[in-house]
Amino acid sequence: MSTLDAVLSHVDANLDASLERMKALVRFQSISTDPAYQQECQKTAEHLAKELNDIGIEAAVRPTAGHPMVVGHAKDNENKSGPHVLFYGHYDVQPVDPLGLWETDPFDPQITERHGVQVMTGRGSSDDKGQLLTFMEACRAYHAVRGTLPIAVSILFEGEEESGSPSLVPFLKENKAELSKDLALVCDTTMFGPSSPAITTMLRGLLGEEIVITAANRDLHSGMYGGPAANPIKILANILADLHDDQGRVTIPGFYDGVEELSAEVKAQWDALPFDGAAFLADIGLSLPAGEAGYSVYELVNARPTCEFNGITGGYSGDGFKTVIASKASAKISCRLVGKQEPLKLRAAFRTFVRDRVPNDCSVDFIDHGASPAHSLSPDYPPLQKGAQALKEEWKQEALMMGMGGSIPIVGEFKDILDMDSMLIGFGLDDDNIHSPNEKYNIGSYHKGIRSWVRVLDALSRD
Amino acid sequence: MSTLDAVLSHVDANLDASLERMKALVRFQSISTDPAYQQECQKTAEHLAKELNDIGIEAAVRPTAGHPMVVGHAKDNENKSGPHVLFYGHYDVQPVDPLGLWETDPFDPQITERHGVQVMTGRGSSDDKGQLLTFMEACRAYHAVRGTLPIAVSILFEGEEESGSPSLVPFLKENKAELSKDLALVCDTTMFGPSSPAITTMLRGLLGEEIVITAANRDLHSGMYGGPAANPIKILANILADLHDDQGRVTIPGFYDGVEELSAEVKAQWDALPFDGAAFLADIGLSLPAGEAGYSVYELVNARPTCEFNGITGGYSGDGFKTVIASKASAKISCRLVGKQEPLKLRAAFRTFVRDRVPNDCSVDFIDHGASPAHSLSPDYPPLQKGAQALKEEWKQEALMMGMGGSIPIVGEFKDILDMDSMLIGFGLDDDNIHSPNEKYNIGSYHKGIRSWVRVLDALSRD
Repeated sequence: MSTLDAVLSHVDANLDASLERMKALVRFQSISTDPAYQQECQKTAEHLAKELNDIGIEAAVRPTAGHPMVVGHAKDNENKSGPHVLFYGHYDVQPVDPLGLWETDPFDPQITERHGVQVMTGRGSSDDKGQLLTFMEACRAYHAVRGTLPIAVSILFEGEEESGSPSLVPFLKENKAELSKDLALVCDTTMFGPSSPAITTMLRGLLGEEIVITAANRDLHSGMYGGPAANPIKILANILADLHDDQGRVTIPGFYDGVEELSAEVKAQWDALPFDGAAFLADIGLSLPAGEAGYSVYELVNARPTCEFNGITGGYSGDGFKTVIASKASAKISCRLVGKQEPLKLRAAFRTFVRDRVPNDCSVDFIDHGASPAHSLSPDYPPLQKGAQALKEEWKQEALMMGMGGSIPIVGEFKDILDMDSMLIGFGLDDDNIHSPNEKYNIGSYHKGIRSWVRVLDALSRD
Repeated sequence: MSTLDAVLSHVDANLDASLERMKALVRFQSISTDPAYQQECQKTAEHLAKELNDIGIEAAVRPTAGHPMVVGHAKDNENKSGPHVLFYGHYDVQPVDPLGLWETDPFDPQITERHGVQVMTGRGSSDDKGQLLTFMEACRAYHAVRGTLPIAVSILFEGEEESGSPSLVPFLKENKAELSKDLALVCDTTMFGPSSPAITTMLRGLLGEEIVITAANRDLHSGMYGGPAANPIKILANILADLHDDQGRVTIPGFYDGVEELSAEVKAQWDALPFDGAAFLADIGLSLPAGEAGYSVYELVNARPTCEFNGITGGYSGDGFKTVIASKASAKISCRLVGKQEPLKLRAAFRTFVRDRVPNDCSVDFIDHGASPAHSLSPDYPPLQKGAQALKEEWKQEALMMGMGGSIPIVGEFKDILDMDSMLIGFGLDDDNIHSPNEKYNIGSYHKGIRSWVRVLDALSRD
C-alpha cells in the first residue's frame, strides 16, 4: 500500500475519534465580537495549540491587542521537497442571536440527519472550526502513519476573523519573516455543490461602517415636539434610501471606480455553470433578484460590489408602543468590493455622502469596522493546478474555479504584507447556515475534506 | 373665613403629607405597555380606589380585558348645584428606558432642586400621577374641611393611556349610563409656562402603526447572498424616506384631507404669544425647524399633522459588527392628526402606501397601535369661562387657550360615546421630561395645581 493510501485508510478508520475532536472544538464559545467571550477565545487558542503540539507541530498561543493568534511549525520542516505552506484558519465564530431560532444548542454540537444527510450542528461547525480541522486532521493522519508531513507546514489560526481582524495586520508585520512562506492554504470557502469540489479564485473585499445620527439632546415626546424637532430615524432612512438608485446601483460618487466587467470568456464560463439563480433565491424564500439590474444572480454575488444594511436601531423597539422621538439612530453598513475598488477611498466618499445629508443642527459619528480590498488568483498558478488535480482524484469531479461573494481579508493581507499567494480550498456548502441559526457542517464535507487535504499535501510534494 | 379660603388654607397647611402621598403613588411601577408590570398596574389601581374611599368617594377597581379602571362617585352627589363632572386621569406610565440616563431611580421619587426649582422626580411624577393627584388632593381638602364637595364629582382613572387604551372604548360603551356626566375634567396637559395657566382647547389625534417587513426566510450571510437577496432594512428605509417630500409634507395620498389652516384671527393670536420657537428648539439642542416648510414652530406642534418614526429595528445592533442580511425589519410609526382628518381612512391609506412599496416576493405585516381623531373645544363654552376665571384668580395671570401637539384619545371618546365635552386643565411643563429619562413635576405645579382645582370646583358650583 502506498503512503498516500495508508494515510487515507487511517483517516477512514479513525473518523469517529476525529468527529469527537470536532465536537470538542465547537463547544468553545469563541464569539470574537462580544467582549463577554474574551476568555472563551483565549481557551480555544490554548486548546488548538495543545492539539497541534500533539501531532508534531510546535505551536504556541501568541498574544495580540485583541484575541490571540495560534502559530505553529512542523518539527521537521527542514529539507522537505515542494513549497513551504502556511495554513490559515480562524477559531472565532459569529454571535448566535436570534438564539430562539436554533433547534439545538449552538455550543452543544450534535451529529444528526438533516434532509437525509449526516451533519454536525453548532456555531462554527462550518465557519470555520470544522473547516480548519479538515487540515489539522490530515496532518494528524500523516503524523500517525508516517511520523512526518510530505511538505513543510506552518500554521496560523486567527481569533478575530468575524470581527474585522483588528490585530491581524500588526501581527503579520511584526512576524513577517516567520510567516512569509511560499504559499498560503486557506480553508474558509465553499464547494460548488455537495459533490463538486472548488478552488475559490475571486473574493470580494469588505468595507464596514457604522453611522450614528444624533438629533435632539434627549428623547422627546412626539406630541410635544413632533413636527419641528428633527427625527434621527427619518434622517437615517433618507440617507439609506439615497444610497441606491432605482436600478439598484450604489450612488456614492466614485463607487464603481475600479469595478471591472467580466471578460466575455469568463462570463461565458459562468453562464455555463450549473447554477440556478431562481433555485438559489427560492431556497431563501425569494423570487425576484434584488441588487443591480442587468446582472445574473451568480454575477451579483460573485463579481459585483454591494452596499448592504446589516443592522439598524433607533427609538423604541420593545413590545407595545411609545410615542417618542429618539435622540439617536444608527445603522451598520457594509460594502462588498470587487476588482480594484479602493476601500479607504470609498470610506472617505461614503462618509462625505452621509455628512452631506445630515442637517446642520444634527451630527453624525462614524465607527470603523474594517476595510479590505478584493482579491483574485490567476488560474495558471502551478500549485492551483496541483490542488485541482488532487481534488478531482478525491471527488471524481473537476474542481471548479469559483468566485465567492464573501470576504476573506487575510488573503489581501498575505499578498500585501507577506508577498504570498493564497489557495482557497474549502468544503462548506451554501446551506450550512453560516452566520445564521442552525449552522451545520456535513459529515461528508468533513471526512472527504480531510482526505482532500491528504491528497493536496501529497500533490504539492511532487514535481 | 369663607369655605373657599378655609379649603385653600388646609391645602397649604398639609402640603408635606400630600407630597408623601404623591411619592407613594409614583413608587408603583405601572408601565402599561410591558406585560411584566401587569401586577404593578393592578396594585396601583387598588391603591387609588382605597385612597378615594378614604376621602368620601366610593370607588372600586373595575376589571377590563387589560389593566383595570378605577371608577368612583362622591357619596353625596345628589342635589348638588352646578354640573356633575367626571374627572379623568391615568395611573399608568411610560417605560423608563434608557435607564442609564436617569439621575435617580425612576420609581424612587425624590424631592430635589433642579435649575433652582423644587421638583419631585420619578416616572409618572408629571404624566400623569402628579397631575391626577392635584384633583384628588383638592377633593381631599374639601372633604377634610367641609365633609363634602361643592359639585357632584365622579372619577375615572385609566391604566392603559400610554399603551393605546385598548380597553377604553368597550368600557365606556358598557358603562355609558354611569359615566356620562355633564362635563369631563381632564388633568393631563401643560401650562404655557411655570406661572402661566392654560386650558387646552385643541388636541392632535393619533394614529399608531407598526410595520414588519419580511424578506428572506432566514438571516443571511451578506457575502454569500449580498446583491441578489432583498434586504428588509433597505425596503423599510425606502418606505420611510418616501413618506415625506422635500418640503416635509407627508406623501400618503389623501393625508391632508380634513386638515384646516388656522383662521387669520387665531393665527394672529398665536403669533402674538410669547412663544420663542428658536428657544424651544435650542432647549433640545436643535436650531433648524424640521417638518413642513412655511409654518411656525408653534403651529407645527399644535396645528399641523405629522408622520413620525418612533422606533426602528432590524439586523444586528449589538457591539461590533455582523455581516448579516436580516430576514425582518420593523418600524413603529405614528401620525399626529388635526382638524377633521379621519384616522381609520388614513390607516387604510397608509397601509396601501406601504404595501405598494414592498417587493412581490417579500411581505409586510401591520400591527394596530390605536387611532383617535383630533379634538377642539369652543372658547364660548360656559364652563371654560368659569375655569379660566378660577385659574386667573389662583395664578394672577390670564389663562391661555392653548393648542397641544399631543393626543388624549379619551377626549374624542368622551364626545363620541358619552356625548360629553372635556375641559383640559393641567399643570405640566415642557421641561418635565415626560416619556424621557429624569421626568419631574414641579412642587409649585403640584401645590398650586391642587389650589387651582379647589377654585375650579368652587367656580363651577356657582351660577
